[in-house]
Amino acid sequence: MPSSTHAASWLDLPADHPFGVAHLPYGVFSTADHGPRVGVRIGDDVLDVSEVARIGRDAVGVGDGPDLTAAWEQPSLNAFLELGHDAWAVARSWLVEVLTDAAHAERTRPHLVPLDDVTMHLPVEVADYVDFYASEHHASNVGRIFRPDSEPLTPNWKHLPIGYHGRSGTVVVSGTDLVRPRGQRKGPTDPAPTFGPSRKLDIEAELGFVVGGSSTLGEPVPVGRAAREHLFGVVLLNDWSARDIQAWEYVPLGPFLGKSFGTSISAWVTPLAALAAARVPLPAQDPEPLPYLRGADDEVFGLDLHLEVVWNGTVVARPEYRDLYWSPAQMLAHLSVNGASIRSGDLFGSGTISGQAKETRGSFLELSWNGTEPVRLDDGSERTFLEDGDTVVLRGWATGTDGGRLELGEVSGTIRPAATA
Amino acid sequence: MPSSTHAASWLDLPADHPFGVAHLPYGVFSTADHGPRVGVRIGDDVLDVSEVARIGRDAVGVGDGPDLTAAWEQPSLNAFLELGHDAWAVARSWLVEVLTDAAHAERTRPHLVPLDDVTMHLPVEVADYVDFYASEHHASNVGRIFRPDSEPLTPNWKHLPIGYHGRSGTVVVSGTDLVRPRGQRKGPTDPAPTFGPSRKLDIEAELGFVVGGSSTLGEPVPVGRAAREHLFGVVLLNDWSARDIQAWEYVPLGPFLGKSFGTSISAWVTPLAALAAARVPLPAQDPEPLPYLRGADDEVFGLDLHLEVVWNGTVVARPEYRDLYWSPAQMLAHLSVNGASIRSGDLFGSGTISGQAKETRGSFLELSWNGTEPVRLDDGSERTFLEDGDTVVLRGWATGTDGGRLELGEVSGTIRPAATA
Repeated sequence: MPSSTHAASWLDLPADHPFGVAHLPYGVFSTADHGPRVGVRIGDDVLDVSEVARIGRDAVGVGDGPDLTAAWEQPSLNAFLELGHDAWAVARSWLVEVLTDAAHAERTRPHLVPLDDVTMHLPVEVADYVDFYASEHHASNVGRIFRPDSEPLTPNWKHLPIGYHGRSGTVVVSGTDLVRPRGQRKGPTDPAPTFGPSRKLDIEAELGFVVGGSSTLGEPVPVGRAAREHLFGVVLLNDWSARDIQAWEYVPLGPFLGKSFGTSISAWVTPLAALAAARVPLPAQDPEPLPYLRGADDEVFGLDLHLEVVWNGTVVARPEYRDLYWSPAQMLAHLSVNGASIRSGDLFGSGTISGQAKETRGSFLELSWNGTEPVRLDDGSERTFLEDGDTVVLRGWATGTDGGRLELGEVSGTIRPAATA
Repeated sequence: MPSSTHAASWLDLPADHPFGVAHLPYGVFSTADHGPRVGVRIGDDVLDVSEVARIGRDAVGVGDGPDLTAAWEQPSLNAFLELGHDAWAVARSWLVEVLTDAAHAERTRPHLVPLDDVTMHLPVEVADYVDFYASEHHASNVGRIFRPDSEPLTPNWKHLPIGYHGRSGTVVVSGTDLVRPRGQRKGPTDPAPTFGPSRKLDIEAELGFVVGGSSTLGEPVPVGRAAREHLFGVVLLNDWSARDIQAWEYVPLGPFLGKSFGTSISAWVTPLAALAAARVPLPAQDPEPLPYLRGADDEVFGLDLHLEVVWNGTVVARPEYRDLYWSPAQMLAHLSVNGASIRSGDLFGSGTISGQAKETRGSFLELSWNGTEPVRLDDGSERTFLEDGDTVVLRGWATGTDGGRLELGEVSGTIRPAATA
């Protein structure tokens, strides 16, 4: 890893801090005496950015730019997202200046709040949530497990990024407990379905993309505009999945209750701008995609992001995001090519991130091969699917624009027993 | 049909008017000098209900009830929906009183706006949109067309109301034009998919259910509570569908771009309370559903609603809603049985309403049997799927609580040519 060269800051921040000035993720926080508003994480503090923007506006006379104060006073990022990509760039430059130029230190320091004193909230009021299926290895593994008599990949898989809509109302912030879902389950040899708690409760380790800016119904968003104007940032995303419920319900209209009981995202949204140094070429796409899915290298790209799946404290998998077949801009261009409009606050998931090697698989379905190969945890216990009380944490990191390590906000969740009523 | 016995009204309204005091559907309207707010249709006028509620509050001193004035000043029904079922009942009783007791005539009359002077808007800010698949005849027909080598109904169909999430951001109000979607299409014998405008653009005649009140994540909503507390009202819903795009994309994760380019709903939401006399028993359910899908007769019911599908002025089908297999309360209970929370503004569609007889089929896919049996219109032209410029109107009616004919708000849309860029 290159040595860290964070821009100097007046903050007392270790040079290798993963939340340095090269990162600056956005979230929504509240304190004991003040309701939810936008904050930016710097070191182990949250910067109350609407307060700082207010000082900037009043003292420095930033009257012509976007109204960041008003956008950041909101209890979600949606208003800021709607300001558009030019405003995001202005905001980021200005935050870097505020945090590095000692002239701002005195005015800014009072608006730093220790992480321990804040409660984090869902950062985005999710408009529409779409989940893609962009990992070839994941799709192949699931095909082998769920449809053993067919080709692992469906014939459409390499022609289009397969996706489907999920439930935006059940997207929750990291730290929210998940109640084990109940539903209908029927094994291949069972005479009829039975009702009860899911016995195959799983995770999916994904990256989520937060969309900013809106488009007009009937007007597709091409790959280039998707990449430059609408991809705001990323979150870690755990697409909790009840495999037994899913297996019985999903033909012919797709997953529904096997997924809709909860989707967890990290509290911090890392701007794409912070991941400029992590951009890498996609794996080769063969056959060549149709023209509407093609783009220049700065439009169609992968990301060199490293994930960890932590199960009750044990790292059980290390998925690599760069293995994914489809680029986020291709996913967004595909999503809208039929004229579907996008809105600020739309969220789309990459689909489970799995590589070829067993230790890079991003779901327990794959890691345990549908329960046939238990996973051993550090405490000596074995797992196939989730048990009540289990906690899963997803972590991720990349190399920042300054060469240092940049950590995505983690996403964690603990399983509570199923409802009894 | 029984003779009409509308409650007497001080309004100069024909006794058999389908928007009489036994109906009172809600919508959102604007006028030249005033932005969108909630209105109630009475006769050929819109009652500006927040203004009337304000008079009631100030003059009659209704201080203890729900704040209808504030809820009805909003540009969507969501705030009113969130007030809950008791408030809906209070509001309905009060509106009937205002419109029938001559003592209210003088104060109320100034707040009646002729339909010709208003613009109607999307009545609900749609939270999550789910589309079900509750017609046995529709599911069987689609199965025969899309999966000719398999049983028409999938094995799960009679055990659970199959559904999936659609795109809430592209739900539009009646009268909105639809741009023909473009996308990937691949026939069974084509070597590879091609990109272009859909050649099999279709409709689906459905009933949409508007949900009010919210539930807690992790706590299912049982059938009885679904029926009594959360089913607010109905709209006619046209689930525009690009069959060629859908056929290529939908395995394994379900319909996506074949549906997400637009879903039209009527501007008027008819309260379930107005459809009390239209409740009918469901067709027999065999096998008996699992306990969580069972309910008393006043919880699990069908609706005797009659639809018309009008293609460029010709009535091409007359679907009967009472043919549907699953009850709306069963659909909502199923949707949440995994603990998924519901929100005011959630919308779910019944799925295409098709009966056994050809003339009761609610999609052109079925009416033309995937394009092999053209439909003749009154102007002598023939159709299989939609052509540019075509207009489709869905109408519906039922018998109201006063024995008169109650017409649902219609939903119409016209197809514009595909984008060329």
